[in-house]
Amino acid sequence: MKKLEICFSPELIHLHDLSQKNIVVVDIFRATSTMVTALANGVKSITPVADLETCREMSKEGFVIAGERNGFLADGFELGNSPLAYLHGKYAGKKIAMTTTNGTLAIEKSKLGSNEILIGAFLNLDTTAKYLAAQDQDILIHCAGWKGKFNLEDSLYAGALVSFLADQFEWECDGAIAMKNLYEQNAGQLKSFLNQAAHAKRLQNQNIEADIDFCLAMNQYEIVGKLVGQELLAF
Amino acid sequence: MKKLEICFSPELIHLHDLSQKNIVVVDIFRATSTMVTALANGVKSITPVADLETCREMSKEGFVIAGERNGFLADGFELGNSPLAYLHGKYAGKKIAMTTTNGTLAIEKSKLGSNEILIGAFLNLDTTAKYLAAQDQDILIHCAGWKGKFNLEDSLYAGALVSFLADQFEWECDGAIAMKNLYEQNAGQLKSFLNQAAHAKRLQNQNIEADIDFCLAMNQYEIVGKLVGQELLAF
Repeated sequence: MKKLEICFSPELIHLHDLSQKNIVVVDIFRATSTMVTALANGVKSITPVADLETCREMSKEGFVIAGERNGFLADGFELGNSPLAYLHGKYAGKKIAMTTTNGTLAIEKSKLGSNEILIGAFLNLDTTAKYLAAQDQDILIHCAGWKGKFNLEDSLYAGALVSFLADQFEWECDGAIAMKNLYEQNAGQLKSFLNQAAHAKRLQNQNIEADIDFCLAMNQYEIVGKLVGQELLAF
Repeated sequence: MKKLEICFSPELIHLHDLSQKNIVVVDIFRATSTMVTALANGVKSITPVADLETCREMSKEGFVIAGERNGFLADGFELGNSPLAYLHGKYAGKKIAMTTTNGTLAIEKSKLGSNEILIGAFLNLDTTAKYLAAQDQDILIHCAGWKGKFNLEDSLYAGALVSFLADQFEWECDGAIAMKNLYEQNAGQLKSFLNQAAHAKRLQNQNIEADIDFCLAMNQYEIVGKLVGQELLAF
Protein backbone atom coordinates (compact mmCIF):
# COMPACT_ATOMS: atom_id res chain seq x y z
CA MET A 1 0.00 0.00 0.00
CA LYS A 2 1.19 3.52 -0.70
CA LYS A 3 2.34 5.61 2.25
CA LEU A 4 1.59 9.15 3.30
CA GLU A 5 3.09 11.47 5.88
CA ILE A 6 2.71 15.05 7.11
CA CYS A 7 5.45 17.59 7.80
CA PHE A 8 4.15 20.50 9.91
CA SER A 9 6.78 23.07 8.99
CA PRO A 10 9.60 23.78 6.52
CA GLU A 11 11.81 23.82 9.66
CA LEU A 12 11.23 20.05 9.99
CA ILE A 13 11.43 19.01 6.33
CA HIS A 14 15.06 17.89 6.69
CA LEU A 15 13.79 15.03 8.88
CA HIS A 16 11.82 13.60 5.95
CA ASP A 17 13.00 11.66 2.91
CA LEU A 18 11.41 13.36 -0.11
CA SER A 19 12.81 11.05 -2.76
CA GLN A 20 10.30 9.88 -5.35
CA LYS A 21 7.42 11.26 -3.33
CA ASN A 22 4.61 13.51 -4.47
CA ILE A 23 4.74 16.58 -2.26
CA VAL A 24 1.63 18.63 -1.56
CA VAL A 25 2.59 22.11 -0.35
CA VAL A 26 -0.17 23.88 1.55
CA ASP A 27 -0.42 27.49 2.76
CA ILE A 28 -4.18 27.96 3.15
CA PHE A 29 -4.04 31.63 4.30
CA ARG A 30 -3.34 32.46 1.58
CA ALA A 31 -0.55 31.57 -0.85
CA THR A 32 -1.66 28.19 -2.16
CA SER A 33 -5.36 29.09 -2.06
CA THR A 34 -4.52 32.13 -4.18
CA MET A 35 -2.39 30.07 -6.58
CA VAL A 36 -5.19 27.53 -7.11
CA THR A 37 -7.71 30.34 -7.66
CA ALA A 38 -5.45 32.11 -10.14
CA LEU A 39 -4.80 28.93 -12.12
CA ALA A 40 -8.49 28.01 -12.12
CA ASN A 41 -9.27 31.51 -13.42
CA GLY A 42 -7.09 31.19 -16.48
CA VAL A 43 -3.71 32.49 -15.40
CA LYS A 44 -1.12 31.05 -17.79
CA SER A 45 1.49 30.22 -15.10
CA ILE A 46 2.70 31.20 -11.63
CA THR A 47 6.41 31.35 -10.90
CA PRO A 48 7.09 31.19 -7.13
CA VAL A 49 10.14 33.29 -6.24
CA ALA A 50 12.00 33.59 -2.99
CA ASP A 51 12.35 37.34 -2.57
CA LEU A 52 10.71 40.63 -3.43
CA GLU A 53 13.68 41.95 -5.42
CA THR A 54 13.71 39.02 -7.86
CA CYS A 55 9.98 39.52 -8.30
CA ARG A 56 10.47 43.20 -9.13
CA GLU A 57 13.11 42.31 -11.75
CA MET A 58 10.66 39.89 -13.36
CA SER A 59 8.11 42.65 -13.91
CA LYS A 60 10.49 43.97 -16.59
CA GLU A 61 10.16 40.63 -18.40
CA GLY A 62 6.39 40.89 -18.66
CA PHE A 63 5.38 39.11 -15.48
CA VAL A 64 2.58 40.48 -13.34
CA ILE A 65 4.15 40.55 -9.88
CA ALA A 66 2.39 39.49 -6.69
CA GLY A 67 3.92 39.78 -3.25
CA GLU A 68 3.12 40.18 0.41
CA ARG A 69 5.10 40.23 3.59
CA ASN A 70 3.35 39.50 6.87
CA GLY A 71 -0.04 39.87 5.24
CA PHE A 72 0.52 43.26 3.61
CA LEU A 73 0.93 44.19 -0.08
CA ALA A 74 4.63 44.62 -0.79
CA ASP A 75 5.83 48.00 -2.02
CA GLY A 76 5.56 48.47 -5.80
CA PHE A 77 3.56 45.28 -6.39
CA GLU A 78 0.41 45.08 -8.51
CA LEU A 79 -1.04 42.14 -6.58
CA GLY A 80 -0.89 41.03 -2.96
CA ASN A 81 -1.92 37.64 -1.74
CA SER A 82 -5.71 37.79 -2.03
CA PRO A 83 -7.38 35.08 -4.13
CA LEU A 84 -10.28 37.44 -4.86
CA ALA A 85 -8.10 39.56 -7.17
CA TYR A 86 -7.95 36.75 -9.74
CA LEU A 87 -11.69 36.08 -10.06
CA HIS A 88 -13.66 36.43 -13.31
CA GLY A 89 -10.57 35.75 -15.38
CA LYS A 90 -9.13 39.19 -14.64
CA TYR A 91 -5.56 37.92 -15.16
CA ALA A 92 -6.38 35.18 -17.67
CA GLY A 93 -3.47 34.49 -20.00
CA LYS A 94 -0.98 36.37 -17.79
CA LYS A 95 2.23 35.02 -16.33
CA ILE A 96 2.45 35.74 -12.60
CA ALA A 97 5.60 35.94 -10.45
CA MET A 98 4.64 35.47 -6.79
CA THR A 99 6.52 35.64 -3.52
CA THR A 100 4.96 35.02 -0.10
CA THR A 101 6.13 34.82 3.51
CA ASN A 102 5.83 31.08 4.04
CA GLY A 103 4.50 29.43 0.89
CA THR A 104 7.38 30.06 -1.50
CA LEU A 105 9.91 28.76 1.03
CA ALA A 106 7.92 25.56 1.48
CA ILE A 107 7.81 25.00 -2.29
CA GLU A 108 11.57 25.59 -2.56
CA LYS A 109 12.30 23.14 0.26
CA SER A 110 10.09 20.49 -1.37
CA LYS A 111 12.29 20.05 -4.42
CA LEU A 112 15.06 17.79 -3.12
CA GLY A 113 14.56 14.48 -4.93
CA SER A 114 10.77 14.66 -4.97
CA ASN A 115 8.72 13.31 -7.85
CA GLU A 116 6.07 16.02 -8.24
CA ILE A 117 5.17 19.15 -6.29
CA LEU A 118 1.49 20.05 -6.09
CA ILE A 119 -0.09 23.01 -4.33
CA GLY A 120 -2.94 22.19 -1.97
CA ALA A 121 -6.06 24.14 -1.00
CA PHE A 122 -9.55 23.36 0.28
CA LEU A 123 -10.74 24.94 -2.98
CA ASN A 124 -9.62 21.91 -5.02
CA LEU A 125 -9.26 19.24 -2.32
CA ASP A 126 -11.34 16.58 -4.04
CA THR A 127 -9.63 16.96 -7.42
CA THR A 128 -6.17 16.87 -5.81
CA ALA A 129 -7.09 13.80 -3.73
CA LYS A 130 -8.34 11.94 -6.83
CA TYR A 131 -5.17 12.86 -8.72
CA LEU A 132 -2.94 11.57 -5.89
CA ALA A 133 -5.01 8.41 -5.52
CA ALA A 134 -4.47 7.64 -9.21
CA GLN A 135 -0.65 7.92 -8.98
CA ASP A 136 1.76 5.22 -7.76
CA GLN A 137 3.78 7.56 -5.54
CA ASP A 138 3.94 7.94 -1.79
CA ILE A 139 2.81 11.36 -0.54
CA LEU A 140 4.24 13.95 1.79
CA ILE A 141 1.99 16.86 2.80
CA HIS A 142 4.22 19.83 3.51
CA CYS A 143 2.55 22.51 5.65
CA ALA A 144 4.01 25.98 5.13
CA GLY A 145 3.20 26.86 8.74
CA TRP A 146 3.63 30.34 10.21
CA LYS A 147 7.22 31.55 10.49
CA GLY A 148 8.39 28.01 11.08
CA LYS A 149 5.73 27.03 13.60
CA PHE A 150 2.77 24.66 13.33
CA ASN A 151 -0.34 26.37 12.07
CA LEU A 152 -3.91 25.22 12.35
CA GLU A 153 -5.31 25.83 8.89
CA ASP A 154 -2.51 24.12 6.97
CA SER A 155 -2.53 21.18 9.39
CA LEU A 156 -6.31 20.79 9.12
CA TYR A 157 -6.04 20.74 5.33
CA ALA A 158 -3.44 17.98 5.72
CA GLY A 159 -5.89 16.10 7.97
CA ALA A 160 -8.66 16.55 5.41
CA LEU A 161 -6.46 15.16 2.65
CA VAL A 162 -5.49 12.17 4.83
CA SER A 163 -9.19 11.59 5.54
CA PHE A 164 -10.02 11.65 1.81
CA LEU A 165 -7.15 9.26 0.99
CA ALA A 166 -7.45 6.90 3.96
CA ASP A 167 -8.71 3.96 1.85
CA GLN A 168 -5.70 3.94 -0.41
CA PHE A 169 -2.79 4.98 1.77
CA GLU A 170 -1.28 3.90 5.08
CA TRP A 171 0.92 5.85 7.47
CA GLU A 172 3.39 5.56 10.32
CA CYS A 173 3.08 9.23 11.06
CA ASP A 174 1.67 10.57 14.31
CA GLY A 175 0.92 13.88 12.64
CA ALA A 176 -1.39 12.11 10.18
CA ILE A 177 -3.22 10.29 13.00
CA ALA A 178 -3.69 13.52 14.94
CA MET A 179 -4.79 15.72 12.06
CA LYS A 180 -7.13 13.16 10.46
CA ASN A 181 -8.94 12.91 13.80
CA LEU A 182 -8.93 16.68 14.37
CA TYR A 183 -10.31 17.33 10.88
CA GLU A 184 -13.00 14.66 11.13
CA GLN A 185 -14.14 15.93 14.55
CA ASN A 186 -14.37 19.52 13.31
CA ALA A 187 -15.30 19.17 9.62
CA GLY A 188 -18.83 20.43 10.23
CA GLN A 189 -17.63 23.64 11.86
CA LEU A 190 -14.35 24.29 10.15
CA LYS A 191 -14.71 28.05 10.01
CA SER A 192 -15.67 28.59 13.65
CA PHE A 193 -12.89 26.24 14.75
CA LEU A 194 -10.34 28.07 12.61
CA ASN A 195 -11.59 31.45 13.76
CA GLN A 196 -9.79 30.86 17.03
CA ALA A 197 -6.53 30.61 15.12
CA ALA A 198 -7.11 33.24 12.50
CA HIS A 199 -7.91 35.94 15.04
CA ALA A 200 -4.48 37.50 15.32
CA LYS A 201 -3.89 37.36 11.60
CA ARG A 202 -7.27 38.85 10.77
CA LEU A 203 -6.47 41.93 12.81
CA GLN A 204 -3.51 42.64 10.55
CA ASN A 205 -5.62 43.21 7.48
CA GLN A 206 -9.12 44.58 7.31
CA ASN A 207 -9.99 42.79 4.09
CA ILE A 208 -8.92 39.36 5.19
CA GLU A 209 -12.35 38.21 6.43
CA ALA A 210 -13.60 37.81 2.85
CA ASP A 211 -10.36 36.02 1.94
CA ILE A 212 -10.77 33.58 4.86
CA ASP A 213 -14.34 32.71 3.85
CA PHE A 214 -13.18 32.18 0.29
CA CYS A 215 -10.15 30.03 1.24
CA LEU A 216 -12.31 27.71 3.38
CA ALA A 217 -14.82 26.92 0.64
CA MET A 218 -14.43 23.26 -0.35
CA ASN A 219 -14.14 21.97 -3.91
CA GLN A 220 -14.83 25.08 -5.94
CA TYR A 221 -12.33 24.21 -8.65
CA GLU A 222 -11.56 21.05 -10.59
CA ILE A 223 -7.92 21.69 -11.39
CA VAL A 224 -4.67 20.36 -9.96
CA GLY A 225 -1.85 22.88 -9.51
CA LYS A 226 1.54 21.35 -10.31
CA LEU A 227 5.09 22.65 -10.53
CA VAL A 228 6.67 22.05 -13.96
CA GLY A 229 10.22 23.36 -14.10
CA GLN A 230 9.96 26.75 -12.37
CA GLU A 231 6.27 27.27 -13.11
CA LEU A 232 3.02 26.24 -11.49
CA LEU A 233 0.51 25.15 -14.12
CA ALA A 234 -3.11 23.96 -14.07
CA PHE A 235 -3.90 20.34 -15.02
CA MET B 1 -3.61 36.83 31.98
CA LYS B 2 -0.69 34.41 31.88
CA LYS B 3 0.17 32.89 28.52
CA LEU B 4 0.93 29.33 27.46
CA GLU B 5 2.33 27.81 24.29
CA ILE B 6 3.33 24.40 22.95
CA CYS B 7 6.50 23.47 21.08
CA PHE B 8 6.12 20.10 19.31
CA SER B 9 9.80 19.23 18.99
CA PRO B 10 13.27 20.22 20.21
CA GLU B 11 13.92 20.97 16.50
CA LEU B 12 11.51 23.91 16.76
CA ILE B 13 12.47 25.26 20.18
CA HIS B 14 14.71 27.96 18.68
CA LEU B 15 11.52 29.63 17.36
CA HIS B 16 10.30 30.20 20.93
CA ASP B 17 11.40 32.73 23.52
CA LEU B 18 12.03 30.79 26.74
CA SER B 19 12.99 33.72 28.93
CA GLN B 20 11.31 33.80 32.34
CA LYS B 21 8.96 30.98 31.36
CA ASN B 22 8.21 27.78 33.20
CA ILE B 23 9.01 24.96 30.78
CA VAL B 24 7.28 21.60 31.04
CA VAL B 25 9.30 18.93 29.24
CA VAL B 26 7.29 15.86 28.28
CA ASP B 27 8.41 12.50 26.90
CA ILE B 28 5.50 10.23 27.84
CA PHE B 29 6.99 7.01 26.36
CA ARG B 30 8.93 6.84 28.58
CA ALA B 31 11.56 9.24 29.94
CA THR B 32 9.50 11.77 31.86
CA SER B 33 6.95 9.16 33.01
CA THR B 34 9.85 7.14 34.38
CA MET B 35 11.40 10.19 36.06
CA VAL B 36 8.12 11.08 37.79
CA THR B 37 7.66 7.47 38.93
CA ALA B 38 11.21 7.27 40.26
CA LEU B 39 10.89 10.54 42.16
CA ALA B 40 7.49 9.53 43.59
CA ASN B 41 9.05 6.25 44.73
CA GLY B 42 11.72 7.89 46.82
CA VAL B 43 14.67 8.28 44.47
CA LYS B 44 16.88 11.04 45.90
CA SER B 45 17.60 12.76 42.57
CA ILE B 46 17.80 12.18 38.83
CA THR B 47 20.57 13.78 36.81
CA PRO B 48 19.70 13.88 33.09
CA VAL B 49 22.84 13.46 30.98
CA ALA B 50 23.31 13.79 27.26
CA ASP B 51 25.28 10.65 26.39
CA LEU B 52 25.86 7.07 27.45
CA GLU B 53 29.57 7.56 28.11
CA THR B 54 29.05 10.36 30.66
CA CYS B 55 26.46 8.17 32.36
CA ARG B 56 28.94 5.26 32.60
CA GLU B 57 31.54 7.56 34.18
CA MET B 58 29.00 8.64 36.78
CA SER B 59 28.47 5.06 37.94
CA LYS B 60 31.98 5.33 39.45
CA GLU B 61 30.74 8.24 41.56
CA GLY B 62 27.93 6.20 43.09
CA PHE B 63 25.14 6.97 40.67
CA VAL B 64 22.82 4.19 39.56
CA ILE B 65 22.86 4.59 35.79
CA ALA B 66 19.81 4.36 33.55
CA GLY B 67 19.98 4.49 29.79
CA GLU B 68 18.23 3.42 26.65
CA ARG B 69 18.71 4.03 22.98
CA ASN B 70 15.79 3.53 20.62
CA GLY B 71 13.84 1.70 23.30
CA PHE B 72 16.53 -0.81 24.28
CA LEU B 73 18.60 -1.06 27.46
CA ALA B 74 22.02 0.42 26.77
CA ASP B 75 25.07 -1.80 27.17
CA GLY B 76 26.43 -1.98 30.72
CA PHE B 77 23.48 -0.12 32.29
CA GLU B 78 21.60 -1.29 35.38
CA LEU B 79 18.34 0.36 34.41
CA GLY B 80 16.64 1.04 31.09
CA ASN B 81 13.73 3.37 30.64
CA SER B 82 10.86 1.44 32.25
CA PRO B 83 8.98 3.18 35.07
CA LEU B 84 8.08 -0.22 36.54
CA ALA B 85 11.66 -0.79 37.73
CA TYR B 86 11.30 1.99 40.32
CA LEU B 87 8.12 0.78 42.02
CA HIS B 88 7.88 -0.18 45.70
CA GLY B 89 10.76 2.11 46.61
CA LYS B 90 13.31 -0.24 45.05
CA TYR B 91 15.70 2.65 44.38
CA ALA B 92 14.63 4.87 47.28
CA GLY B 93 17.44 7.13 48.46
CA LYS B 94 19.56 6.48 45.36
CA LYS B 95 20.95 9.08 42.99
CA ILE B 96 20.14 8.19 39.37
CA ALA B 97 21.99 9.34 36.25
CA MET B 98 19.71 8.94 33.24
CA THR B 99 20.13 9.38 29.50
CA THR B 100 17.36 8.85 26.93
CA THR B 101 16.93 9.25 23.20
CA ASN B 102 14.67 12.30 23.16
CA GLY B 103 13.94 13.39 26.73
CA THR B 104 17.39 14.47 27.86
CA LEU B 105 17.87 16.56 24.73
CA ALA B 106 14.58 18.35 25.32
CA ILE B 107 15.57 19.14 28.91
CA GLU B 108 18.95 20.47 27.77
CA LYS B 109 17.33 22.68 25.12
CA SER B 110 14.87 24.07 27.69
CA LYS B 111 17.50 25.81 29.77
CA LEU B 112 18.16 28.99 27.80
CA GLY B 113 16.80 31.78 29.98
CA SER B 114 13.88 29.83 31.35
CA ASN B 115 12.60 30.27 34.90
CA GLU B 116 11.94 26.66 35.93
CA ILE B 117 12.04 23.32 34.13
CA LEU B 118 9.46 20.73 35.16
CA ILE B 119 9.01 17.23 33.80
CA GLY B 120 5.52 16.32 32.71
CA ALA B 121 3.61 13.01 32.73
CA PHE B 122 0.00 11.89 32.86
CA LEU B 123 0.97 10.24 36.17
CA ASN B 124 1.12 13.61 37.95
CA LEU B 125 -0.84 15.84 35.57
CA ASP B 126 -3.18 17.31 38.16
CA THR B 127 -0.43 18.14 40.67
CA THR B 128 1.70 19.74 37.95
CA ALA B 129 -1.25 21.76 36.63
CA LYS B 130 -2.05 23.06 40.13
CA TYR B 131 1.58 23.99 40.68
CA LEU B 132 1.74 25.92 37.38
CA ALA B 133 -1.58 27.64 38.08
CA ALA B 134 -0.19 28.92 41.38
CA GLN B 135 2.90 30.50 39.79
CA ASP B 136 3.09 33.89 38.08
CA GLN B 137 5.05 32.64 35.07
CA ASP B 138 4.02 32.03 31.48
CA ILE B 139 4.34 28.39 30.39
CA LEU B 140 5.90 26.61 27.45
CA ILE B 141 5.15 22.90 27.05
CA HIS B 142 8.13 21.33 25.28
CA CYS B 143 7.33 17.98 23.67
CA ALA B 144 10.36 15.73 23.27
CA GLY B 145 8.86 14.21 20.13
CA TRP B 146 10.36 11.27 18.28
CA LYS B 147 13.71 11.93 16.63
CA GLY B 148 12.74 15.54 16.01
CA LYS B 149 9.25 14.83 14.70
CA PHE B 150 5.83 15.50 16.23
CA ASN B 151 4.61 12.61 18.35
CA LEU B 152 1.11 11.85 19.46
CA GLU B 153 1.53 10.97 23.13
CA ASP B 154 3.61 14.01 24.08
CA SER B 155 1.31 16.31 22.12
CA LEU B 156 -1.81 14.83 23.75
CA TYR B 157 -0.28 15.38 27.18
CA ALA B 158 0.31 18.99 26.15
CA GLY B 159 -3.35 19.21 25.11
CA ALA B 160 -4.43 17.74 28.45
CA LEU B 161 -2.37 20.28 30.35
CA VAL B 162 -3.82 23.14 28.26
CA SER B 163 -7.29 21.77 28.98
CA PHE B 164 -6.61 21.68 32.75
CA LEU B 165 -5.17 25.23 32.70
CA ALA B 166 -7.64 26.85 30.29
CA ASP B 167 -9.31 28.99 32.96
CA GLN B 168 -6.11 30.69 34.02
CA PHE B 169 -4.05 31.00 30.85
CA GLU B 170 -4.56 32.34 27.34
CA TRP B 171 -2.70 31.49 24.15
CA GLU B 172 -1.90 32.66 20.65
CA CYS B 173 -0.61 29.25 19.72
CA ASP B 174 -2.25 27.10 17.07
CA GLY B 175 -0.64 24.00 18.59
CA ALA B 176 -2.47 24.66 21.85
CA ILE B 177 -5.82 25.09 20.06
CA ALA B 178 -5.31 21.88 18.10
CA MET B 179 -4.10 19.70 20.97
CA LYS B 180 -6.65 20.94 23.52
CA ASN B 181 -9.40 19.96 21.10
CA LEU B 182 -7.77 16.64 20.20
CA TYR B 183 -7.30 15.74 23.87
CA GLU B 184 -10.83 16.72 24.84
CA GLN B 185 -12.35 14.74 21.97
CA ASN B 186 -10.34 11.63 22.85
CA ALA B 187 -9.94 11.83 26.63
CA GLY B 188 -12.35 8.95 27.20
CA GLN B 189 -10.42 6.60 24.92
CA LEU B 190 -6.86 7.78 25.29
CA LYS B 191 -5.28 4.35 25.18
CA SER B 192 -7.09 3.08 22.10
CA PHE B 193 -6.40 6.36 20.31
CA LEU B 194 -2.72 6.22 21.23
CA ASN B 195 -2.49 2.57 20.27
CA GLN B 196 -2.50 3.64 16.63
CA ALA B 197 0.64 5.64 17.28
CA ALA B 198 2.41 3.31 19.67
CA HIS B 199 2.16 0.35 17.32
CA ALA B 200 5.57 0.60 15.70
CA LYS B 201 7.30 1.36 18.98
CA ARG B 202 5.60 -1.48 20.85
CA LEU B 203 7.00 -3.94 18.36
CA GLN B 204 10.51 -2.90 19.32
CA ASN B 205 10.21 -4.14 22.87
CA GLN B 206 8.13 -7.01 24.14
CA ASN B 207 7.73 -5.57 27.64
CA ILE B 208 6.54 -2.19 26.52
CA GLU B 209 2.80 -2.97 26.71
CA ALA B 210 2.87 -2.89 30.51
CA ASP B 211 4.90 0.33 30.38
CA ILE B 212 2.36 1.96 28.06
CA ASP B 213 -0.55 1.08 30.34
CA PHE B 214 1.39 2.46 33.29
CA CYS B 215 2.41 5.71 31.54
CA LEU B 216 -1.19 6.47 30.53
CA ALA B 217 -2.61 6.20 34.05
CA MET B 218 -3.72 9.63 35.21
CA ASN B 219 -2.86 11.27 38.53
CA GLN B 220 -1.17 8.42 40.35
CA TYR B 221 1.37 10.66 42.07
CA GLU B 222 1.13 13.96 43.89
CA ILE B 223 4.64 15.25 43.29
CA VAL B 224 6.08 17.84 40.94
CA GLY B 225 9.39 16.99 39.26
CA LYS B 226 11.61 20.03 38.95
CA LEU B 227 15.16 20.65 37.76
CA VAL B 228 17.35 22.27 40.44
CA GLY B 229 20.86 22.87 39.20
CA GLN B 230 21.69 19.63 37.35
CA GLU B 231 19.28 17.44 39.29
CA LEU B 232 15.60 16.61 39.06
CA LEU B 233 14.00 16.58 42.49
CA ALA B 234 10.53 15.86 43.84
CA PHE B 235 8.49 18.71 45.36
